[in-house]
Amino acid sequence: MARVLTAREIGFCFGVKRAVSLCEETLRRHGACFSIGPVIHNERVMENLTARGLKIVREMPDGRTPALVRSHGLHPEKLRALSKSGREVVDATCPFVSRVQKLVTRLRRQGYRVLIIGEPDHPEVKALAGFAGNSALICPAGRSAARRWAAVNFRTPPAKRVAVVSQTTSTEPVYRETLAALLKAGLPGETRIFDTVCRVTEKRQAEALELAGKTDLLLVVGSRKSANTRNLYRLVRKRKPAAYFISGPEEVRDDWCRPNLTVGLVSGTSTPVETIKEIKKKIERT
Amino acid sequence: MARVLTAREIGFCFGVKRAVSLCEETLRRHGACFSIGPVIHNERVMENLTARGLKIVREMPDGRTPALVRSHGLHPEKLRALSKSGREVVDATCPFVSRVQKLVTRLRRQGYRVLIIGEPDHPEVKALAGFAGNSALICPAGRSAARRWAAVNFRTPPAKRVAVVSQTTSTEPVYRETLAALLKAGLPGETRIFDTVCRVTEKRQAEALELAGKTDLLLVVGSRKSANTRNLYRLVRKRKPAAYFISGPEEVRDDWCRPNLTVGLVSGTSTPVETIKEIKKKIERT
Repeated sequence: MARVLTAREIGFCFGVKRAVSLCEETLRRHGACFSIGPVIHNERVMENLTARGLKIVREMPDGRTPALVRSHGLHPEKLRALSKSGREVVDATCPFVSRVQKLVTRLRRQGYRVLIIGEPDHPEVKALAGFAGNSALICPAGRSAARRWAAVNFRTPPAKRVAVVSQTTSTEPVYRETLAALLKAGLPGETRIFDTVCRVTEKRQAEALELAGKTDLLLVVGSRKSANTRNLYRLVRKRKPAAYFISGPEEVRDDWCRPNLTVGLVSGTSTPVETIKEIKKKIERT
Repeated sequence: MARVLTAREIGFCFGVKRAVSLCEETLRRHGACFSIGPVIHNERVMENLTARGLKIVREMPDGRTPALVRSHGLHPEKLRALSKSGREVVDATCPFVSRVQKLVTRLRRQGYRVLIIGEPDHPEVKALAGFAGNSALICPAGRSAARRWAAVNFRTPPAKRVAVVSQTTSTEPVYRETLAALLKAGLPGETRIFDTVCRVTEKRQAEALELAGKTDLLLVVGSRKSANTRNLYRLVRKRKPAAYFISGPEEVRDDWCRPNLTVGLVSGTSTPVETIKEIKKKIERT
């Protein structure tokens, strides 16, 4: 029987747990609920919620069905439209993400041009850019991407005062590398840098690297749509060649179930603990 | 006759001109004046001023002889002691340096730990560290120096909120490079970066590089004790092998005075324009 070492920080993180609970509670109360985009980036969880009455939409339809703001947050204009509509609005924005939204709102009011380092198409970044105002800049993470971006956007200093934040699910080393590349390319009169990388994400990353050293192979469990799971995988992959990204027990391979094999299990923040348990059982059983 | 191209920004900068004038005026009024350390970093100018009654001291002696605060500024504790002594205090701190002193005082009050990038033994940096409070950090400029410094000082984050400023006479590329190295090494929760590199210094640097492209050889005129002159020389030296550091006309070499040779003249901010004129004359005469 293979031995499975499970990370201490595993399954839903605080923000995801809260979002899924709020969604379930709303569905219990109303039997139906709308969300612009998936509440969290996990297909299994979303299937379960849609089966219970959740409807994922692109634009909010008219009516009185409650609207849920997903964990990544929502653009402030869409938020305003929702609250004007008279329907119940359940705000499931992750409290850590809310904190960054409040931070950029304050910075924008103080006259800073906000620069967000993250994936321009990620819902968290899109919503955050809304709070940061129309002049917000979005720079992709990573040294070479930032260098290319800066060559176009830093030709002249983008503003006298610039404030930089990160997508919460980035990794600190990547954020730092990106910042270093940006600073080499240009420097406004005043630059303010905030470390807004989520500590939960960081803890999982640290634990994953620790587990990588103790195990024969390491499985990163989660959805390919989840940025934090992808980042987690990218990070461990650099240190451990025997690392695999899987989304559920059906992807467990027979050769991972050999006796005397030590298998590490880590997960992204939107992976339910049930998936982890099923994977563990499958590896240990055979 | 060799052709001499003189930089437009040459001779004393605004702050140095002001400091020397204030010193001369004080000497005219009182016949004597004390200064802790040389008023500016130029031996010729200092000889001239001491001949007229200026005394350079390490510690201020008792008495009523006026005290002059040199262009680099003075540690706030020494400033307080001076103003308590009852003697006349002539503050010749460069207004651009004063501005940085005020900035770090404000930042310290706002709870930031101040990090100064510069030469730890330079009087501007020492005085600035005084205004920044007892917890101020001083990191030497340059990528590898900063990396070594950070390896010791950034083992744990030095504070939750750090504000970074530069010695005014640094160069922007060096400051940026240093910042990039520091950011790669560590990142406090909030970092504030201020571009406090003096524009006058920067303009001279830009002009020196421009002149380097147009001339056969480039002479950087100033004292070896002057940080900004040394930086200017270091910068042009990288681009132009035929660049030389000289302090006065006596160091002009015969082979620089050949006909059809184009010689560029640039200077640090504490070099009097008279020295430039003498050098120009000597090169053109022969």
